Amino acid sequence: MSAAVSTDSERILAGEARAVARAISKVEDGAEDAAELMKALYPHTGRGLVVGITGAPGAGKSSLVDRLAALYRKRNERVGIVCVDPSSPFSGGAILGDRIRMQVLGLDPGVFIRSMATRGHLGGLARATVDAVAILDAAGYEKIIVETVGVGQDEVEIVKTADVSVVVLVPGMGDDVQAIKAGIMEISDVFVINKADRDGVLRTEKELEALLTLATRPDGWQPPIIKTIATENNGTEELAAAIASYQDYQRSAQSTSARRAAVARWRILELLGETLLARVVKRNGTNARLDELAREVADKRRDPYSAVEEILKSSGQ
Amino acid sequence: MSAAVSTDSERILAGEARAVARAISKVEDGAEDAAELMKALYPHTGRGLVVGITGAPGAGKSSLVDRLAALYRKRNERVGIVCVDPSSPFSGGAILGDRIRMQVLGLDPGVFIRSMATRGHLGGLARATVDAVAILDAAGYEKIIVETVGVGQDEVEIVKTADVSVVVLVPGMGDDVQAIKAGIMEISDVFVINKADRDGVLRTEKELEALLTLATRPDGWQPPIIKTIATENNGTEELAAAIASYQDYQRSAQSTSARRAAVARWRILELLGETLLARVVKRNGTNARLDELAREVADKRRDPYSAVEEILKSSGQ
Repeated sequence: MSAAVSTDSERILAGEARAVARAISKVEDGAEDAAELMKALYPHTGRGLVVGITGAPGAGKSSLVDRLAALYRKRNERVGIVCVDPSSPFSGGAILGDRIRMQVLGLDPGVFIRSMATRGHLGGLARATVDAVAILDAAGYEKIIVETVGVGQDEVEIVKTADVSVVVLVPGMGDDVQAIKAGIMEISDVFVINKADRDGVLRTEKELEALLTLATRPDGWQPPIIKTIATENNGTEELAAAIASYQDYQRSAQSTSARRAAVARWRILELLGETLLARVVKRNGTNARLDELAREVADKRRDPYSAVEEILKSSGQ
Repeated sequence: MSAAVSTDSERILAGEARAVARAISKVEDGAEDAAELMKALYPHTGRGLVVGITGAPGAGKSSLVDRLAALYRKRNERVGIVCVDPSSPFSGGAILGDRIRMQVLGLDPGVFIRSMATRGHLGGLARATVDAVAILDAAGYEKIIVETVGVGQDEVEIVKTADVSVVVLVPGMGDDVQAIKAGIMEISDVFVINKADRDGVLRTEKELEALLTLATRPDGWQPPIIKTIATENNGTEELAAAIASYQDYQRSAQSTSARRAAVARWRILELLGETLLARVVKRNGTNARLDELAREVADKRRDPYSAVEEILKSSGQ
């Protein structure tokens, strides 16, 4: 191990927030020594509990995460929060809301908040997020909360890497609970109906219960439905209890090991794909040629498939 | 070109729905002759108008798409609908709602509906969706509507490939309009506030207008806000008019060509990454070794980075 990586790694293992922040930037940027650092940290991961929280925009995930973090803090646990935002590659979009949250929770040295956003076109958001979680885990954060906006494919994959996955719904989605069924039912260990003071909460609960009776999970777990009003800190204790109860259940369940292996396989493939792509694109001249090819494809002078063939040929693959 | 691909391609260009369906399955499965077929079809694309429709689950996108499709049908245009669902890789999840829709719209031979779901772990959902759109385009569908559930990273990329992007909101998301700002504001050419008979529609509209005055688009377009009640077919004409009006605007705007080149670049990179990964994984023995490595990573006997290094080394990269 290089001396620099060794120092970085020691500081992270000692829980230094600045070293953690720097390391997350490295994995986000795909820095050269990121791989070496992650290799050094990996054996120290697996101690923290990773809680994934997802749901549609407007479901009140951020408030819920803040309440949960505050509760864990009261129990004297250190909390890491990683937010995944599908922001625009054009703007690099920093999130206003995140900065506001930082001003409240961020003052507490026991809380670490970080937004992950897409940089550039080489992907890697999901991989970088999972690496960020591993860094926080190695740094001794007892609870690591991963919050994803939206229910896209990448987000589903990210949430699946969590130890406990929480899906947040709101009353009034009514007829569309169907729509989220396919992607979400199997990944959620705990359901939350937030804004539970709104009309339609009973209907949403009934529909969700009906869907849950249809689905059988391989591990036999029955996902509980927790009603919360995050803005009034209502139901946070119950949510924390449901999360803890699934954590306990998992320890005894056999399927956990299959789930962990599936997650590991996905992580390896993500990283492999990104590495292969970066190698070809970073090769001399490929980037400029890529721009020319993109122009030709845009003008219909060429199709994407033959453009890829050309890149592969010229990079000797 | 092989004789089989040549026949397939002729049938698609003649608009045969069964040939279209078969071709989409091929690009979804990453079949061997998919590349050859796409190359043959590509010169015939670019005639149809591709409309991307996205928004949170519960926003009523499907009803809106159905109404819009019915309106285009009344104008005697053929309509292709591609739905992107972030379904579970465990179940391969077919969507119940989709089957119900097929029973209504699907009886009309002028409408082609297809759901794209993730298959396996090699990704490619976004690429396959864009290929499916190109196939429908080559087959002479005048309007191709791409409907994505959720606002994840892949979904944002898919919507960006559309000629006109529509983002659907509902009243009552209120304080969370902020949350969707970063990812969505720049990609949406038309905003819809659906369920406009609900409380809070004015507030949502005002907030959206406020956000829109903050954002300046590179092409100078001011995205209109259309209020709809899809279940009552209210506002569909206005939505179609807004879509047409952005299409007209685009023809005169200079930035369209830059946008098309950016989309083409993204398509090439997606396809390149997928091709590189598939080549390594399909190599003899990699798949079995991948399972072993995943097991080792899951048990913390190995980290993902060194697993990837081993795969690369053993495949001679």
